[in-house]
Amino acid sequence: MAETADITAMRRAVALAARGLGATSPNPVVGCVVLDAAGQLAGEGFHQRAGGPHAEIHALREAGDRARGGTAYVTLEPCNHTGRTGPCAQALIEAGVRRVVYAVADPDPRATGGAGTLRAAGTEVESGLLADEAEAGNTAWLTSVRLGRPHVTWKYAASLDGRVAAADGTSRWITSAEARADVHRLRAGADAVVVGSGTARADDPQLGVRGIDGAVQPLRVVVDTGARAVRPGARVLDGTAPTLIAVAQDADAAHLPAGAVLRLPRAATGPGLDVPALLDALHTRGVRSVLLEGGPVLAGSFVTAGTVDTVVGYLAPVLLGAGPAALAEAGIPTLSQALRLAVTETVRIGPDLRVTAVPVPARKGN
Amino acid sequence: MAETADITAMRRAVALAARGLGATSPNPVVGCVVLDAAGQLAGEGFHQRAGGPHAEIHALREAGDRARGGTAYVTLEPCNHTGRTGPCAQALIEAGVRRVVYAVADPDPRATGGAGTLRAAGTEVESGLLADEAEAGNTAWLTSVRLGRPHVTWKYAASLDGRVAAADGTSRWITSAEARADVHRLRAGADAVVVGSGTARADDPQLGVRGIDGAVQPLRVVVDTGARAVRPGARVLDGTAPTLIAVAQDADAAHLPAGAVLRLPRAATGPGLDVPALLDALHTRGVRSVLLEGGPVLAGSFVTAGTVDTVVGYLAPVLLGAGPAALAEAGIPTLSQALRLAVTETVRIGPDLRVTAVPVPARKGN
Repeated sequence: MAETADITAMRRAVALAARGLGATSPNPVVGCVVLDAAGQLAGEGFHQRAGGPHAEIHALREAGDRARGGTAYVTLEPCNHTGRTGPCAQALIEAGVRRVVYAVADPDPRATGGAGTLRAAGTEVESGLLADEAEAGNTAWLTSVRLGRPHVTWKYAASLDGRVAAADGTSRWITSAEARADVHRLRAGADAVVVGSGTARADDPQLGVRGIDGAVQPLRVVVDTGARAVRPGARVLDGTAPTLIAVAQDADAAHLPAGAVLRLPRAATGPGLDVPALLDALHTRGVRSVLLEGGPVLAGSFVTAGTVDTVVGYLAPVLLGAGPAALAEAGIPTLSQALRLAVTETVRIGPDLRVTAVPVPARKGN
Repeated sequence: MAETADITAMRRAVALAARGLGATSPNPVVGCVVLDAAGQLAGEGFHQRAGGPHAEIHALREAGDRARGGTAYVTLEPCNHTGRTGPCAQALIEAGVRRVVYAVADPDPRATGGAGTLRAAGTEVESGLLADEAEAGNTAWLTSVRLGRPHVTWKYAASLDGRVAAADGTSRWITSAEARADVHRLRAGADAVVVGSGTARADDPQLGVRGIDGAVQPLRVVVDTGARAVRPGARVLDGTAPTLIAVAQDADAAHLPAGAVLRLPRAATGPGLDVPALLDALHTRGVRSVLLEGGPVLAGSFVTAGTVDTVVGYLAPVLLGAGPAALAEAGIPTLSQALRLAVTETVRIGPDLRVTAVPVPARKGN
């Protein structure tokens, strides 16, 4: 039974970790709180960016000598390897920390083993405290380690009858200013934002994060199979953040900046590019979380490929009765083959609803 | 400032009133609580069915002599006219009630004036207590008095991407057993259930209320313009509840029971019958609330006609990517002409979401 002080400290560490979302890729987000021998707060920190110090190092620096005989709370098992920064397990031992409590074991084979190193040095080690909360904060990274591809959140904004635009194509704005601001929060938490050629053509989106202080701009990715949607002067080529235009291997992309062109095989069936190949290319570039912003055809390709891990729908209380649906062809011919989800959250965002859901394993009998 | 005892009694009256939903048409639902001179509960009642005693009469009977010098709480202004039952204002005066508190004034010109009669007889009269709650319980009836047509609730069940069926037409079951049970609660509260020919053809629905003790079966209405969808032997013709098959004036309906055929003009534009004429015909038959259960084309006709007063969407956390949308052509060519709603409630029903919304006046600039 965890004590209140343990829970309080770990919850703080989870909150600290969240501050790094969208900025630590390809690393996880991690938070750390150090209490001194008397149980008083001595130091805290979080992993702020890849290449920078890990959370434990920030917290130990702040704690200084007060770490000796104290307890460190870390959201992820302290690393055991020397990467761009030294191993945290060793740093905790050298600081004289008496006890280390971590929430989630490190699944990364290169980093795991920290707990064993600590125990071998006589440090008391406990694990599992607030594991669910810590995992939830690291969903994208944990998914990417497990599956070897980025975690994908598909976000859409639709009318209550499921349309993303009216009959004449008008779509600005179905959802409210509050919902659109919320999308910038999602973007800020993602390593890459992905849209399709239809969206690029219709909206010429800039795809940057606006209105969030200190946000790291995500990589902008346009899936433009035929290299016909993104033209020179497109807002996505404004240089404010890195951009990739994913095109087919045989596409004529001479009009695009060479450094921005990502050539990929076409999908074996259906329109567009091979989605797993796209995700693989992004993973290789360090992308651990993707915010897929549409449109319906590209979302259909991702659903068909089985590569949607979270769905975030902004539903505006609006009826249209015509216009494109939020999700196009997704390889689902009949109801029993529908992609079944579980709703994890529903929140009002201004006048709109935000529904978050995750796929569930197929039900028996389906 | 209302006293706690007043609020408690009126809230009980509102709850009692709700028990009559779906059974009192063409009358409103009304609840009544009588406290004796000492403030103790003496009697309570609600209007159970048209032609039966009003709520006040039930409560006064239960209270007997204890009503003398007491207070009566009624959700609607006591009636002043002699309809199928005597005027309640007179009954309250004769019972010696000292004070009458009602929530909502009676908008029906034939019934109004009860408050004046009571005051003239020296009874203390107060109004407006819990008026919002009482009005909410009588929304359908108040709408029908105001507009001279039944209140219409459009109910649909769709996937998260707004589909009511998969590409191959399969639609059983998109939503959960819990959501379907909830629909029976909606049906039980409605005077009539309306579906279109597409639904009749695809599902052969029975349209009855099941699983709710004491429910009054609503009138079943199928809009079958060409008289080709409902065949002899259809479940809607099973005789368990009254049924109307609405057909065009020129349709050949010889195969249908003559008493079930309702002939109406065709819509001036678009498919199907003239929706206002249909609602008028139902209103004439005493229908004050309609549950419109689809499908998409009929719902589109109702939206086009401006005759949807409440939308209840059951959203299943399921993605389909193909199949018919919840709402078909509704006369909305562009986003600025969308039917804007306000969400009044969102509830989880089993794994599904139920979203309730009502139209809002057009925004400036639209």
